[in-house]
Amino acid sequence: MSLITVGTMAFDAIETPFDKVDKIIGGSATYVAYAASNFINDVKQVSIVGYDFPEEEMQLLKNRGVKLDGVEIVKDKKSFFWSGKYHIDMNSRDTLITDLNVLESFNPKIPESYQGAEFLMLGNLMPSIQLDVIRQLKERPKLIVMDTMNFWMDTALEDLKKVLKEIDVLLVNDGEARQLSGEVSLVKAAHKIMEMGPRFLIIKKGEHGALLFHKKNVFFAPALPLEDVFDPTGAGDTFAGGFIGHIAKTKDISYDNMKTAIIVGSAMASFCVEKFGPDRLKEITKEDIDDRLKEFVQLVNFDIALV
Amino acid sequence: MSLITVGTMAFDAIETPFDKVDKIIGGSATYVAYAASNFINDVKQVSIVGYDFPEEEMQLLKNRGVKLDGVEIVKDKKSFFWSGKYHIDMNSRDTLITDLNVLESFNPKIPESYQGAEFLMLGNLMPSIQLDVIRQLKERPKLIVMDTMNFWMDTALEDLKKVLKEIDVLLVNDGEARQLSGEVSLVKAAHKIMEMGPRFLIIKKGEHGALLFHKKNVFFAPALPLEDVFDPTGAGDTFAGGFIGHIAKTKDISYDNMKTAIIVGSAMASFCVEKFGPDRLKEITKEDIDDRLKEFVQLVNFDIALV
Repeated sequence: MSLITVGTMAFDAIETPFDKVDKIIGGSATYVAYAASNFINDVKQVSIVGYDFPEEEMQLLKNRGVKLDGVEIVKDKKSFFWSGKYHIDMNSRDTLITDLNVLESFNPKIPESYQGAEFLMLGNLMPSIQLDVIRQLKERPKLIVMDTMNFWMDTALEDLKKVLKEIDVLLVNDGEARQLSGEVSLVKAAHKIMEMGPRFLIIKKGEHGALLFHKKNVFFAPALPLEDVFDPTGAGDTFAGGFIGHIAKTKDISYDNMKTAIIVGSAMASFCVEKFGPDRLKEITKEDIDDRLKEFVQLVNFDIALV
Repeated sequence: MSLITVGTMAFDAIETPFDKVDKIIGGSATYVAYAASNFINDVKQVSIVGYDFPEEEMQLLKNRGVKLDGVEIVKDKKSFFWSGKYHIDMNSRDTLITDLNVLESFNPKIPESYQGAEFLMLGNLMPSIQLDVIRQLKERPKLIVMDTMNFWMDTALEDLKKVLKEIDVLLVNDGEARQLSGEVSLVKAAHKIMEMGPRFLIIKKGEHGALLFHKKNVFFAPALPLEDVFDPTGAGDTFAGGFIGHIAKTKDISYDNMKTAIIVGSAMASFCVEKFGPDRLKEITKEDIDDRLKEFVQLVNFDIALV
């Protein structure tokens, strides 16, 4: 039940209407690893960091069973840095700074010890890098999940379309689904996107939940209504980590199990937003996760026999 | 299982990005009656129309068991007229014209034959009128459900607060819940609003579904993802009609049954948007409704045992 995750490990500066932090650990692969390592103890990380990335953060991940052989450390460059500011509704944000630093020369090498992994989670990266990672794998994973963003639709659409042909599950948000398909209706958008390659499509709608499409089927997972959303940074990556973590644990890539996996992802994301960065993810226990999953059952279960 | 519904019966002119109509039957009580009459055959309508409201529309409602003794016909005035234009996302709209006409002198009288009704649905109207209706009832209904809007929060907040003390279930949209409570978080907003009177609060989020709050509990009903949303006009009222119709049919005002009722309301609303005005509601059968309810089960049911 091994999982390769590819993505960024970074520093973030975050400002919300309620608080701010100047420098906190972030990056898509960091969030995926924190979420997925609740379910499997063989997360194989592929990333790149600079000389400034703290050794103790590496150690925290190792303690959770995350392998870091695929994390390149560049001695003379800084780690990727992102800074953003959230609007009052916490659903939208402005990017203030993007310092690529080590990311400019990210050219991931899959270590020999990672070969044979059954699951692959491609975090949001340049499509040509995502494709290169897939091509380095000697054996195709049972399931390839991929995240992307509007930036690559604007700047590298042809490469993106090539990757789409190679993957099983695509994760995008509602605006990106509309952009990629040219359709306003998410149902129509989903069917067009699935024709581009992925058999499964997950459309994330932030506080409005997520939709899973497969063939003619659609499943909806709500976001848990929370008293306070403290910091949404990383919620999408945490969702992805919970999703792929559950699938890697159960080794079941059926549509029915993906529904459960999306609920698990939503539960993990609901923790993520409770504190800055991955702080909350570092402290939660299996019991916390089980309790939250029960809240999701309460949130959506109804008795249709009453009709 | 009798239900009194109070609200407007009107003409609408509607423009969407895809089509337009100059004059079509509308009004909150019209939509509530079309939806609720699928579940009970004793809907007692309270409204006001002008000389121009078509007799055949009245007859269509009568054929569905809707009583019209409480619908005042004003011989020398026109019916209420509303005109609106939807934006490309179909989630927002501009009001172009509001001709109150008969509504200016709406002073509903509850007919003697309506007394003793077990359920009351107060459509969106001036709060003092809603309160007056409640006071005219000799016996308090088992459940009073009320719709309102931001306009009354701006112009008649004190009256609105008086009505809130008298009702059981309040229906508002997310923006209205935030305005009424002064809270951005919908969870916090819900608890503040329930302290104002209603034991149950339904927050409608349009295409993003609806939340039901009661005490510490929260339940979420998604909107059905549709290929095409043709005309959202009346979807909220149709939701309300399906909700109260199911409750009136089952005579069960428990929280558990309200969850089912919200799903029923969402199913009815999903039909409403498929054609202009109430056209689609006029043609659907019990079988159509049952099939759609099954789609809702497919949409949200997951197997937590798989975790």
